[in-house]
Amino acid sequence: MMQTKRPFEVLSRNIGKNVKVRLKGAQVFTGTFLGYDPHWNISLDGAEQCRNHRRVAFGKLILRGNNVLYVSELDKD
Amino acid sequence: MMQTKRPFEVLSRNIGKNVKVRLKGAQVFTGTFLGYDPHWNISLDGAEQCRNHRRVAFGKLILRGNNVLYVSELDKD
Amino acid sequence: MMQTKRPFEVLSRNIGKNVKVRLKGAQVFTGTFLGYDPHWNISLDGAEQCRNHRRVAFGKLILRGNNVLYVSELDKD
Amino acid sequence: MMQTKRPFEVLSRNIGKNVKVRLKGAQVFTGTFLGYDPHWNISLDGAEQCRNHRRVAFGKLILRGNNVLYVSELDKD
Amino acid sequence: MMQTKRPFEVLSRNIGKNVKVRLKGAQVFTGTFLGYDPHWNISLDGAEQCRNHRRVAFGKLILRGNNVLYVSELDKD
Amino acid sequence: MMQTKRPFEVLSRNIGKNVKVRLKGAQVFTGTFLGYDPHWNISLDGAEQCRNHRRVAFGKLILRGNNVLYVSELDKD
Amino acid sequence: MMQTKRPFEVLSRNIGKNVKVRLKGAQVFTGTFLGYDPHWNISLDGAEQCRNHRRVAFGKLILRGNNVLYVSELDKD
Repeated sequence: MMQTKRPFEVLSRNIGKNVKVRLKGAQVFTGTFLGYDPHWNISLDGAEQCRNHRRVAFGKLILRGNNVLYVSELDKD
Repeated sequence: MMQTKRPFEVLSRNIGKNVKVRLKGAQVFTGTFLGYDPHWNISLDGAEQCRNHRRVAFGKLILRGNNVLYVSELDKD
Repeated sequence: MMQTKRPFEVLSRNIGKNVKVRLKGAQVFTGTFLGYDPHWNISLDGAEQCRNHRRVAFGKLILRGNNVLYVSELDKD
Repeated sequence: MMQTKRPFEVLSRNIGKNVKVRLKGAQVFTGTFLGYDPHWNISLDGAEQCRNHRRVAFGKLILRGNNVLYVSELDKD
Repeated sequence: MMQTKRPFEVLSRNIGKNVKVRLKGAQVFTGTFLGYDPHWNISLDGAEQCRNHRRVAFGKLILRGNNVLYVSELDKD
Repeated sequence: MMQTKRPFEVLSRNIGKNVKVRLKGAQVFTGTFLGYDPHWNISLDGAEQCRNHRRVAFGKLILRGNNVLYVSELDKD
Repeated sequence: MMQTKRPFEVLSRNIGKNVKVRLKGAQVFTGTFLGYDPHWNISLDGAEQCRNHRRVAFGKLILRGNNVLYVSELDKD
């Protein structure tokens, strides 16, 4: 039987890894996943946004959780 | 008499099975249902999104519950 | 004098019956009403959606309450 | 001096009477006001919606409070 | 030094007076202010809405607070 | 080292002064800042709105906090 | 192993530094970061908004957290 893996359990395994964060307004950010909290607030290091086919660098970025659509892994296990 | 089957009771029976998750913004994701929490946050494995008739692979994906419209079973009992 | 019938009291009488559920985004689902919870999360069996004059079958469907506009009875008493 | 009449106090006096309920999306429903709860969930009997100058009959209808804009009396005292 | 006058304190002084209530969707209602609650639910008597340069009469009207943009006094002190 | 000045601490220093309040829907109100509460509900005296290059006077105005985008000082220290 | 750095921990390190705050409606503000609270309410000093390629000065500005999309550092460590 398959074991349940709760969303935040899966999320927490990506700490220190490269992730992709997509916001409701379709903006996509990538960066090293520094941390999160139960409201889906997310901190990234070396954050970059792909905007009109250009990459914009942000350094450290703190995203408000309310706008997050999903987080996906970029470094496959 | 028919028995009540609460939404999360029905949802939990799909753990480990293939499901379809539709978001408010009409995006549709399929994948193996890893888990959920009371906020409808959802973790999928082998997640794929159908976008402009192409399938985009995500690996492990964590969806923020706030945006979920529905979950439906892909493996019929 | 007329007696008050609270919304969830009226809703619960439809368990096991055919209902119509309309979402905010105008999608309409029909199916056997399996259950609900206080957040208006709704589980349907034999769910169908009418989309562009075609009926799409879902089997078991779990709708997130946040998006529900109304529930109406299809089997009149 | 005028006495305060709290919104739900005014609302509750319409139980058993004909009311008009307007939703955010501009839909208007009329019917016999069966009940409500503190979330503005509303149950109507003999509900009808005026849509494109046609009246659509619903029988018993349970509206999710989140979408309600206002309730007004149709039977003036 | 000026004294703080909290929003609900200012609001409550308008009970029994004519007020203007504007909703998010730009609808404007006037009427005698019957009461309110902490959720900004508002009850008006002799309510009127100005719609396409016509005045529509509602009698008693209960507005859901969630949609309110502001309340202003029509009877200046 | 710089000292933290929490948002409501900064806000409260404007009581009795002229402020500008911008709402989500881009409406801008100015007036004497009478008070606020933790929900960002705001009361203004001598409130004016700039609409289509005309100034509309409101007298006392109570704004629902949910719609506020920001408050800025008009009287610089 | 990488250490978790929770979003508000990263945010708080920017107190007294120049930050960029982007709101949902795409408005961007820069200024000295005075403080924040758990609702993402943010106070800036010397705030400026870039609007139609002009810089508009605000002095002290209090932003309602609900509208914030992200905060990023302008002074890289």
